[in-house]
Amino acid sequence: MNSAVWIWYPGDFEIYHGMKQNFRREERGLGWPAFWKMDDWRKNLRFFRKYELKEAETFTVYGRGVGHVQVDGQKIPIGKEISVSAGTHLIEVFIGSMTGLPCIYVENSAEEGSIYSDSTWGVDDFLEAVPAGTSSLYTRREQDPGEVEYEELLVQPQSVTEKDGGALIDFGRMVDGRPVIVFKDNRDSERAFTILYGESEDEAMDAAFCYYKEENTTADRELRKRAFRFLYLPGIRPGEIEVRAVHQRVPLKVRASFHSDDEMVNRIWEVSEETYKLCSGLFFIDGIKRDRWVWSGDAYQSMMVNPYLYFDREIDKRTSRALRGNTEIRQHINTIVDYTMLWLISIQNEYMMDGDIAYVREMYPKMEAVMDLLFSQTDERGFVKGRERDWIYIDWADIDKDGPISAEQVLLWKCCGVMAYCAGRLADRDGSSVSDDNRSECGQNIAESRKPALGPDGRPLPADHVAPYDAPLPAEERQRLKERAAIYEEKAENLRQAILDYYWDEEKGALIDSFTSGRRNVTRHANIFAALFDFADEEQKKQICWGVLYNENVPQITTPYFKFFELDALGKLGDLDGIWKMLHEYWGGMLERGAVTFWELFDPAEEGRAQYGMYGDPFGKSLCHAWGASPIYLLGRYFLGVRPTSPGYATYEVKPALQYFDKLDCTIPVGKKSVHITLESGELAVSEC
Amino acid sequence: MNSAVWIWYPGDFEIYHGMKQNFRREERGLGWPAFWKMDDWRKNLRFFRKYELKEAETFTVYGRGVGHVQVDGQKIPIGKEISVSAGTHLIEVFIGSMTGLPCIYVENSAEEGSIYSDSTWGVDDFLEAVPAGTSSLYTRREQDPGEVEYEELLVQPQSVTEKDGGALIDFGRMVDGRPVIVFKDNRDSERAFTILYGESEDEAMDAAFCYYKEENTTADRELRKRAFRFLYLPGIRPGEIEVRAVHQRVPLKVRASFHSDDEMVNRIWEVSEETYKLCSGLFFIDGIKRDRWVWSGDAYQSMMVNPYLYFDREIDKRTSRALRGNTEIRQHINTIVDYTMLWLISIQNEYMMDGDIAYVREMYPKMEAVMDLLFSQTDERGFVKGRERDWIYIDWADIDKDGPISAEQVLLWKCCGVMAYCAGRLADRDGSSVSDDNRSECGQNIAESRKPALGPDGRPLPADHVAPYDAPLPAEERQRLKERAAIYEEKAENLRQAILDYYWDEEKGALIDSFTSGRRNVTRHANIFAALFDFADEEQKKQICWGVLYNENVPQITTPYFKFFELDALGKLGDLDGIWKMLHEYWGGMLERGAVTFWELFDPAEEGRAQYGMYGDPFGKSLCHAWGASPIYLLGRYFLGVRPTSPGYATYEVKPALQYFDKLDCTIPVGKKSVHITLESGELAVSEC
Repeated sequence: MNSAVWIWYPGDFEIYHGMKQNFRREERGLGWPAFWKMDDWRKNLRFFRKYELKEAETFTVYGRGVGHVQVDGQKIPIGKEISVSAGTHLIEVFIGSMTGLPCIYVENSAEEGSIYSDSTWGVDDFLEAVPAGTSSLYTRREQDPGEVEYEELLVQPQSVTEKDGGALIDFGRMVDGRPVIVFKDNRDSERAFTILYGESEDEAMDAAFCYYKEENTTADRELRKRAFRFLYLPGIRPGEIEVRAVHQRVPLKVRASFHSDDEMVNRIWEVSEETYKLCSGLFFIDGIKRDRWVWSGDAYQSMMVNPYLYFDREIDKRTSRALRGNTEIRQHINTIVDYTMLWLISIQNEYMMDGDIAYVREMYPKMEAVMDLLFSQTDERGFVKGRERDWIYIDWADIDKDGPISAEQVLLWKCCGVMAYCAGRLADRDGSSVSDDNRSECGQNIAESRKPALGPDGRPLPADHVAPYDAPLPAEERQRLKERAAIYEEKAENLRQAILDYYWDEEKGALIDSFTSGRRNVTRHANIFAALFDFADEEQKKQICWGVLYNENVPQITTPYFKFFELDALGKLGDLDGIWKMLHEYWGGMLERGAVTFWELFDPAEEGRAQYGMYGDPFGKSLCHAWGASPIYLLGRYFLGVRPTSPGYATYEVKPALQYFDKLDCTIPVGKKSVHITLESGELAVSEC
Repeated sequence: MNSAVWIWYPGDFEIYHGMKQNFRREERGLGWPAFWKMDDWRKNLRFFRKYELKEAETFTVYGRGVGHVQVDGQKIPIGKEISVSAGTHLIEVFIGSMTGLPCIYVENSAEEGSIYSDSTWGVDDFLEAVPAGTSSLYTRREQDPGEVEYEELLVQPQSVTEKDGGALIDFGRMVDGRPVIVFKDNRDSERAFTILYGESEDEAMDAAFCYYKEENTTADRELRKRAFRFLYLPGIRPGEIEVRAVHQRVPLKVRASFHSDDEMVNRIWEVSEETYKLCSGLFFIDGIKRDRWVWSGDAYQSMMVNPYLYFDREIDKRTSRALRGNTEIRQHINTIVDYTMLWLISIQNEYMMDGDIAYVREMYPKMEAVMDLLFSQTDERGFVKGRERDWIYIDWADIDKDGPISAEQVLLWKCCGVMAYCAGRLADRDGSSVSDDNRSECGQNIAESRKPALGPDGRPLPADHVAPYDAPLPAEERQRLKERAAIYEEKAENLRQAILDYYWDEEKGALIDSFTSGRRNVTRHANIFAALFDFADEEQKKQICWGVLYNENVPQITTPYFKFFELDALGKLGDLDGIWKMLHEYWGGMLERGAVTFWELFDPAEEGRAQYGMYGDPFGKSLCHAWGASPIYLLGRYFLGVRPTSPGYATYEVKPALQYFDKLDCTIPVGKKSVHITLESGELAVSEC
């Protein structure tokens, strides 16, 4: 079966679209490209594949860019049908593109032909050859992988009412797309009007402060993609117009469902799902109105949700590749030191989800480069510090950031553990342990011939062979990885001791923020990480519970971002009551305000217009923010109790917290299959389907 | 006086356009992007400048890309007039572009206003801040620095004749542009026809093998830029059409002239000038039909010609920046080890031409990175060797390339000397030695304030100050450079000794190619470099003359590329007769064949169609090739005897070789001024004007 796909330099699809995404922020008529160093996709490539054919074949190469095909060194234009005889042939495609993603599609004239583009091809930027990158989203030749293909959904307004002499439109849901306004009277088709957009009615009604405004537009003009629930058209009477909206989304399949006897929790799941779907396109973004950027901390949490809703193997990887960019790393991801570390930790989480060792292999050099960067900025005790332009974020909170801070060190310790684990898994592989089910999209075999090809000037070109990412590693590489694993383990152990020596306050039963300031301030953050990542031993965890988590003198977490870590830690420590309460109060509180998606932040004390402000901006708060969707993870992971106990859910656990429910009818994916959990009249049933 | 210019990240203009240039090769209907790693221009930038204003000012920022302006942290859209009060202000512009060159133009509303974009601005890719890049070609706000602005010249055909049932058009000169064909009968405006292009008539008449062919075109369609002298339109009668061509060129001013009593030499100068002009656009390219690429070896020679024709300070630098790309270097320039070294040597040549120390400062880190790469591939004797995918070129000749070869070592020795010189010059600078005349386009003062600006999230942004490239260096940097200079000197001395030990054959009076093969083969190449770069002492030079240069048993140089080095060496050794003979025979020989530009290669033995073939391709030879223009250098440097004796022609020598001429009336630029040399009735007059 011939199943050609578009191929590119691995990671470049994500770098390219990640940059597009990060350039898309808009605020009150101005563009706001993200304020960090953006890595570049490669502009000039050579794709290659050696075939040994039993019979003659005919194929055509399509490409995005300028270039040509070479068959056994013979140049042929792109787009031309090519016939090759039986025997061995080296097919090369040289292609360059400055404005788009250089990529190719090789189509065989026969269904059963063997020459077609897929991840068994190699690709080369004239430095190193690597296996080609692919996506299940780009499988047809007429596509352009440089453009996102959105699925479009027509949305009718819930209400169109007259207000202050204009038309106020409420779609009753968040739309990420474009409004379509049609005047009933054809003669008005050239009539200029203004559209004010709002996530809230207040925002749409505020011509000065709404984020998005389209002035002087006409009905026939296609508008750019924006997020809104409300529209306000000053000076237009509702009767004059017909309104709809075209919502655009990247097709992603929801595989989970949640129904219980607690209607509020059901609604929380629903609104979380809606929020999550809106914030996941090619990548996990933070929010649909603002920032529309790919942030590593936000993405980390979205990746935790993924197995409990989509179980989509590709969106995590697309997001990670976009965040990380090329192998060389000089600036932390999003400029934030802790975000770099969360990125690294998420690789292991992803591996636990789908068991795709080829992906770990692909990422491993980028992970090592991250560790080298981190170690390059450690002090004599092994503690990581921020460099001049680094951002030590952790959270918007009053953390004592004097000198190296404890939360960063716990993350660094966890990173060492992840590295030891990943290096160990790669070193263990003898090539037989990957099931077909868990193969990456980049992982099939490539012909092994190693005769050097000749370049345009008769000089040897790079090898015509490249090992796929899931190929067994050579013995010396396995040995090297074993040694690396041991080094990381040792680093982790040393670091753990140093952290305890410098930050652990036995009396407080807590890690202090900073040991240099002398203030011995305690915040929840480092302690939450310590509990969550098993940095703390059982005794210390108990101390952290009473010394920090249940200690009302330690300031509460105020952001849903870090609330996620806290709730995850509570879940891990077995305090489901705490999570249950929070679900009802915090997320339930937003529902009571009529939220159709979950917000960046919710403060019950704020009412009316005030509740939409943030960062000193009256509508600065995002009302559809990915991290608002964490109840899906919390419910799936702790209340339905589903979790993998080995990579790729080869084994997994289902341990529902029955005390919270009288009824359950839920489905959670576990790899290609799902578990169906029902509770009815005190009877629990769990089945795999 | 307010003289705003477009500004960008320094070097990125050249990387961007260099890539465009290197993607422009076309061959018989297929595209051929250059086969090397292409560095990327930066997509996401922050421009900044702090101003201390005595009075309020009004200005507007224009930009190519998405982004916004920040004045003291306040966001303002691009394209909007901005007013600022008297006092201190930080102006920042954030701009990103994926498809073009991100760049800005800041225009003041008042002639005498102080806020406008120029090289005193800093620019930042969110890693390091550097002084902004500029070009004298982009000074008007309506321009787009992402597009080359060509000057267009209408060319009328010299003849249109009927041949084999079609129209053969001869423009009598090389055109790099597009043909314009108009049918006299308006009804033919939709008529489809074919254009065959040729540098020679043979090529244009050969539908199968001509390089460029436009099939199925119509009179109203604009054709792409191509090089040709002849066109052939099959099936079109000359009477049916009107033909012209639009020649496109980057405006570059010829400042030299050469008239002597030797008509052949005059004509050689003329045709060299024509060849050189055609092969210099934004960059020095190799040839106009083929490859249209920027090659370092070719550019090295074009840069030698430059002071004797244009004395253009910018084209050398644009070419060097395009060749070298970003600071990190993993692949040799054009993949060729010797081309990397010639690139480095050319920096000193450029400095000798215009004395622009700011440019040396800008390039110095890129030069050090080159040296690090070279040293990373030396053996225990200090000899540089090719890595797996490196190309050890030197010349198309039978050089014994076993093991490290001598020609590469002589270049490496020269590079050490260049580094010692440049590091020394930079270390010597106390900030007072650069006259205004010799300032780089990147070299004025920038406000010195160092208060950190605040970013979008209240975090400190990079400094709002960056030292210009010609600022005095801090003492510790000067000390470091002094130490580097000493290290390079020592390396050069050690290398010289090793080269003599391993390659110098006292008996042959020559450097052998290889000491590992045991063949002790002698070619001219290493010996020419040894004489040219003063590796050889006076005694050894004499030995090389008789042992190699005048030794008919040592195979002749066959390429004009290396012939240039040989003639330069002869000139240096004082053998002007040898050059004079070569001018008349080789270049004169091409003139006798009716050449209107000089060729990539000339072999008097080849006649007819055969003379156009090269690389196994019947029309593979470029008939307008930059290195064909070297007579301008040879005549200017050795026969008019003009050369700088200190950087920037602060002092220079004029020493015409009067024995070859009865009459001379020549002008050669020497910095901003020129020397006028006349010889008439045995009387020589030299004046500066």
